[in-house]
Amino acid sequence: MIDSLIVPPGTRRPLAKRRTDEDFGWDKEPTKAETTEVMAKVAELHNVLFAEEQRSVLVVVQAMDAAGKDGVVRTLLTGLNPGGIEVTGFGVPSAAEMAHDYLWRVHQALPSRGRIGVFNRSHYEDVLVVRVRGFKPPAVWKKRYAHIRNFEQMLVDEGTTVVKLFLHIGLDEQRLRLQDRIDDPAEQWKFRKGDLDDRALWPEYMKAYEDALHETSTADAPWYVIPADRKWVRNRCVAEVLHDTLKRMKPAYPKPEEGIEGLIVQ
Amino acid sequence: MIDSLIVPPGTRRPLAKRRTDEDFGWDKEPTKAETTEVMAKVAELHNVLFAEEQRSVLVVVQAMDAAGKDGVVRTLLTGLNPGGIEVTGFGVPSAAEMAHDYLWRVHQALPSRGRIGVFNRSHYEDVLVVRVRGFKPPAVWKKRYAHIRNFEQMLVDEGTTVVKLFLHIGLDEQRLRLQDRIDDPAEQWKFRKGDLDDRALWPEYMKAYEDALHETSTADAPWYVIPADRKWVRNRCVAEVLHDTLKRMKPAYPKPEEGIEGLIVQ
Repeated sequence: MIDSLIVPPGTRRPLAKRRTDEDFGWDKEPTKAETTEVMAKVAELHNVLFAEEQRSVLVVVQAMDAAGKDGVVRTLLTGLNPGGIEVTGFGVPSAAEMAHDYLWRVHQALPSRGRIGVFNRSHYEDVLVVRVRGFKPPAVWKKRYAHIRNFEQMLVDEGTTVVKLFLHIGLDEQRLRLQDRIDDPAEQWKFRKGDLDDRALWPEYMKAYEDALHETSTADAPWYVIPADRKWVRNRCVAEVLHDTLKRMKPAYPKPEEGIEGLIVQ
Repeated sequence: MIDSLIVPPGTRRPLAKRRTDEDFGWDKEPTKAETTEVMAKVAELHNVLFAEEQRSVLVVVQAMDAAGKDGVVRTLLTGLNPGGIEVTGFGVPSAAEMAHDYLWRVHQALPSRGRIGVFNRSHYEDVLVVRVRGFKPPAVWKKRYAHIRNFEQMLVDEGTTVVKLFLHIGLDEQRLRLQDRIDDPAEQWKFRKGDLDDRALWPEYMKAYEDALHETSTADAPWYVIPADRKWVRNRCVAEVLHDTLKRMKPAYPKPEEGIEGLIVQ
């Protein structure tokens, strides 16, 4: 199942050909229970990774509005030791951030050894919204795919496992969710009128995502396309990807200090 | 109960007079259940604080080794939305940190608006270990109480609620826990022989803690002494302090953007 989510390096497959309502034939309640079990294993591996303190994991989460970026963090990652996780949301760049290259703020936010870092939006906005809204000309953003590949390869070489998740929601499911935000007083604060402007640019965003996924999914830093119309399918998929990633890292408790065997504390 | 944990500003009460094995007459299992319920309320208030994005909370956690600093983070704060929490551990200062004043690294690690920041050790080490180990002369560390009061007052004035927790463990309970770490292969990695050197300086540390608590517990940034010999008592106390703190902040969802009423998403 996980393999089917990966964007194979060098391939270009239209996002329209990947179902946003894929459910893998799963049933909802057993799947939710399975997700809980998988996340318990993730929590265990996470604790060992934290104790080991040698390597880190970067999870990049990208998606259109209302596809569940916050939801993944809140509903899925709650339950992991917050001492070993660092979530960073990237919004409109600050003046200081604009005064530097686009990878500057990202670099500073990377997880330290032993930790899982989660980027809620990321440097990929610099080849997505920046492109679609025309904030920079093609001559600028086209070079960024190579920058990003090189930057992420450096991170991998230096001990960070990089996992990138595109939460793939359908145009119609987004409509329902945005409408819910408008209609539900408890959700209204999440809605910005600007969200509709991005929605109107859906085909342009899909094209930008396709290019970004195609250009930057590498063997060492792969993109996963997560079907996101159903929250329980999305969560199960993300849980499986996290579990698979941590399991393959084989974290281990560090060796104890020499000569503590048999020591008696006075 | 919470009031009895506070160090009233301007008072000096020997730590020896505060019981580390206090249990408030509670029973273990009902107390653990109560803690879970209180933390569910904390999680709810935390989500609203995060949505509000106007104010932050700084929780400073200080204690002797094995008193439960990591335990509080792992067992109690797991369950809060990791997107709204930032845990920072302060160890031996790096070269870059040593090249600045002692509040520099602390300032950078403060939680942004909407978030709870947790300091696992903190700037208080600069009037504790620095004093006890003689890293700086009294003329230097004695001035720091005023720096810290002023720094924390500034934070409070600018929208950060400051809560400081001293996990108060007994000398004998520490002995048992350190011995466990030595004897249990799964725990050995946590133990450093240097921990015993700090243990040997227990009376000096207690004196340094008493002075720090006395000098820096203010109405706006109070210290709480948490009885920590029993993990379930410690957790309940910390949960109650967090709940009380967040409840008094009365976080509220932000107002929705003007003119979204009745909007239909196309």
